[in-house]
Amino acid sequence: MNAAHGAAADAKETARIEAFSDGVFAIAITLLVLDLKVPRGMAEGRDLLAALVGQWPAYLAFVTSFATIGIMWINHHRMFTLIRRTDDGLLVLNGLLLLGVTFVPFPTGVLAEYTPRAAGRVAAAVYSGTYVAIAVFFNLLWWYAAHRKRLLRSAADRAVVQAITRAYSIGPLCYALAFGLAFQSVAASLVLNLALAIFWALPSQNPLVKKGMGEAP
Amino acid sequence: MNAAHGAAADAKETARIEAFSDGVFAIAITLLVLDLKVPRGMAEGRDLLAALVGQWPAYLAFVTSFATIGIMWINHHRMFTLIRRTDDGLLVLNGLLLLGVTFVPFPTGVLAEYTPRAAGRVAAAVYSGTYVAIAVFFNLLWWYAAHRKRLLRSAADRAVVQAITRAYSIGPLCYALAFGLAFQSVAASLVLNLALAIFWALPSQNPLVKKGMGEAP
Amino acid sequence: MNAAHGAAADAKETARIEAFSDGVFAIAITLLVLDLKVPRGMAEGRDLLAALVGQWPAYLAFVTSFATIGIMWINHHRMFTLIRRTDDGLLVLNGLLLLGVTFVPFPTGVLAEYTPRAAGRVAAAVYSGTYVAIAVFFNLLWWYAAHRKRLLRSAADRAVVQAITRAYSIGPLCYALAFGLAFQSVAASLVLNLALAIFWALPSQNPLVKKGMGEAP
Amino acid sequence: MNAAHGAAADAKETARIEAFSDGVFAIAITLLVLDLKVPRGMAEGRDLLAALVGQWPAYLAFVTSFATIGIMWINHHRMFTLIRRTDDGLLVLNGLLLLGVTFVPFPTGVLAEYTPRAAGRVAAAVYSGTYVAIAVFFNLLWWYAAHRKRLLRSAADRAVVQAITRAYSIGPLCYALAFGLAFQSVAASLVLNLALAIFWALPSQNPLVKKGMGEAP
Repeated sequence: MNAAHGAAADAKETARIEAFSDGVFAIAITLLVLDLKVPRGMAEGRDLLAALVGQWPAYLAFVTSFATIGIMWINHHRMFTLIRRTDDGLLVLNGLLLLGVTFVPFPTGVLAEYTPRAAGRVAAAVYSGTYVAIAVFFNLLWWYAAHRKRLLRSAADRAVVQAITRAYSIGPLCYALAFGLAFQSVAASLVLNLALAIFWALPSQNPLVKKGMGEAP
Repeated sequence: MNAAHGAAADAKETARIEAFSDGVFAIAITLLVLDLKVPRGMAEGRDLLAALVGQWPAYLAFVTSFATIGIMWINHHRMFTLIRRTDDGLLVLNGLLLLGVTFVPFPTGVLAEYTPRAAGRVAAAVYSGTYVAIAVFFNLLWWYAAHRKRLLRSAADRAVVQAITRAYSIGPLCYALAFGLAFQSVAASLVLNLALAIFWALPSQNPLVKKGMGEAP
Repeated sequence: MNAAHGAAADAKETARIEAFSDGVFAIAITLLVLDLKVPRGMAEGRDLLAALVGQWPAYLAFVTSFATIGIMWINHHRMFTLIRRTDDGLLVLNGLLLLGVTFVPFPTGVLAEYTPRAAGRVAAAVYSGTYVAIAVFFNLLWWYAAHRKRLLRSAADRAVVQAITRAYSIGPLCYALAFGLAFQSVAASLVLNLALAIFWALPSQNPLVKKGMGEAP
Repeated sequence: MNAAHGAAADAKETARIEAFSDGVFAIAITLLVLDLKVPRGMAEGRDLLAALVGQWPAYLAFVTSFATIGIMWINHHRMFTLIRRTDDGLLVLNGLLLLGVTFVPFPTGVLAEYTPRAAGRVAAAVYSGTYVAIAVFFNLLWWYAAHRKRLLRSAADRAVVQAITRAYSIGPLCYALAFGLAFQSVAASLVLNLALAIFWALPSQNPLVKKGMGEAP
């Protein structure tokens, strides 16, 4: 087998893992709506309206989880634009990340159910704790692929790779902060979670974009 | 990096965003069936039949949401046949649109539950209000991409672009009308929602088709 | 625009409709499992076993719907190997077919709930009635595409097209028979539904295969 | 039709079956989260925490099913890298495998509900029994494709094919052991199921990798 043939086969393999992962991201992000429950037994319009408005923590959890899974999808995709081949270790670590992503609707449901209540702190801690784990899985996946540029495209710039490594390593710390905040203030913890998703969506914060990775051939 | 290489990378990026969006559209449209509840505890066939027939608002909501998401999918696809490259702004605005699309099963469930009851007007207003928001997101996405043809294919005809801008800008107004109608008549509001989906499905109403966009190289 | 360019764009369009339809088929077929309910509150293993075995109509409905959606997917795919371009009419008729497919989990749930009970006949009639509608939509889609070979590949053999038209036209009749049987015997109606799916899965019954359509360039 | 044209059409067909199967795998693996139930009515944080921790069998079932479907997806994909064309028999056997995969969330839910209770042995037996069936379907699919290399790429190495046949044939036996263990010890049966998924994820255990199948052109 010549090198060109092998590179084509590698590209097909990584494309397939990416397509499967995309499917899981798309399904997980769409299943979040099942955590929004239709209020039952409201007699009057004003009762229904009050019940719908009273569910604001559920909408906040829905939007936060949607934004967070969306950002994870974008970053997963950007990471794979640098990865040129796969191996079984990558498959397993990618599987671990997807395990975390498919789990998200559950803590989202816990948060939606308990936010305005006494048990809200535990719910918020479980929610942020899930993101700590996912952020760790994200870093494991990246470290595994990027270590000595093991699975990266040879054209990948060392400075870009290091910038990504630094940027991703902040993720677990940020979510750990949100985890800790949950025990002080549920609202502060949730706002931090949502703010993180919005912050990471800003173009200037992304080393893969800022450093021109998208421009690398 | 030469221009041809860059164009190929751009095409791959937009194709991927489209594929992810398609997945979300397909899942959201298929999850609508979960808003149809199997009647429980019917002793006789006639009771079951009566219970099934009595759920007509749920079927109407199912069909209307299906048709509306379907039309949004078709238009999203048509829009992307004109878009030749993406950036972070487009990603965020596309994410906002998908947030609206994944939310649809929830107001559909509210509508299915409350249509024939006193709280139906609030339910119909929530339902149409969701579409107002989605139609606004749709316009934001298009305006962002089409402003000075920022992200459009250079071959895109200015007259076609302007015709699309005009056609899309009517969307929020139509859904706002359905929103207002909800407080007068639930039936009129729902019929308008369904009529809009059917109207926009008609070939002659679509400037992308009428003006021959599909023919542009 | 030259003809080769147009043909490529047409192929891309039909591929995209097929991909979206495939997504809807895959999701609908996987959502069927949600109609299987975990028995609650069984104290002993023998109670759980009895409860699980007692749910046999739900498994039968699950397998029958799975097989039927699977066959519809295969035939939809085969149909699209003959279709070389799309138009808005095809989009709408394909949407009508997908509406039917996404609806299937609901009558499957009704059937699973009521099969061994007095209301079973109504449930079985609703179930078969859904397939009558879907089979009609299938024929509409095919007739629309195949009329004077409007949207078909020019190389499509007229004899093959006519054989498919004949084969598909039997579908609504078969399901109408299952619909009628439901009022006489629920078991006979269900067995017919499952038998139809198995029968159509047999290679020799498929004119697209038998007549060598797969061989046509 | 010349041979090159036919090979390209074959490749397109197998790619499409693989894409559909991937969709079903991705959806089934993501639906598993619906088996995790949000505890209702917990007044205090400590109650919620206790309720969440008390659901450990549900998490164990979730992780085990996720890992098992994930491994099945990887193996399905590897199998299809050797298959170069499809026929109706393969379609039907692949459908049988997918039927098993889409069913997995149901026994997972049964296991999650009953593991720490008296009925747990029956639940664990149903769970492992499902995997016995799926492993058998997997072997049927492989035997059908690999018999006299009927549907395999001509370049497929006979020794590799035989190694895969041997490796896959162990699957049903392992799950049958887990099935038998369920009646002795629920914990031992579950640990075996999870251990099997982890074991098969190890690169060195996979003859398709070990024997260099990935290297074959």
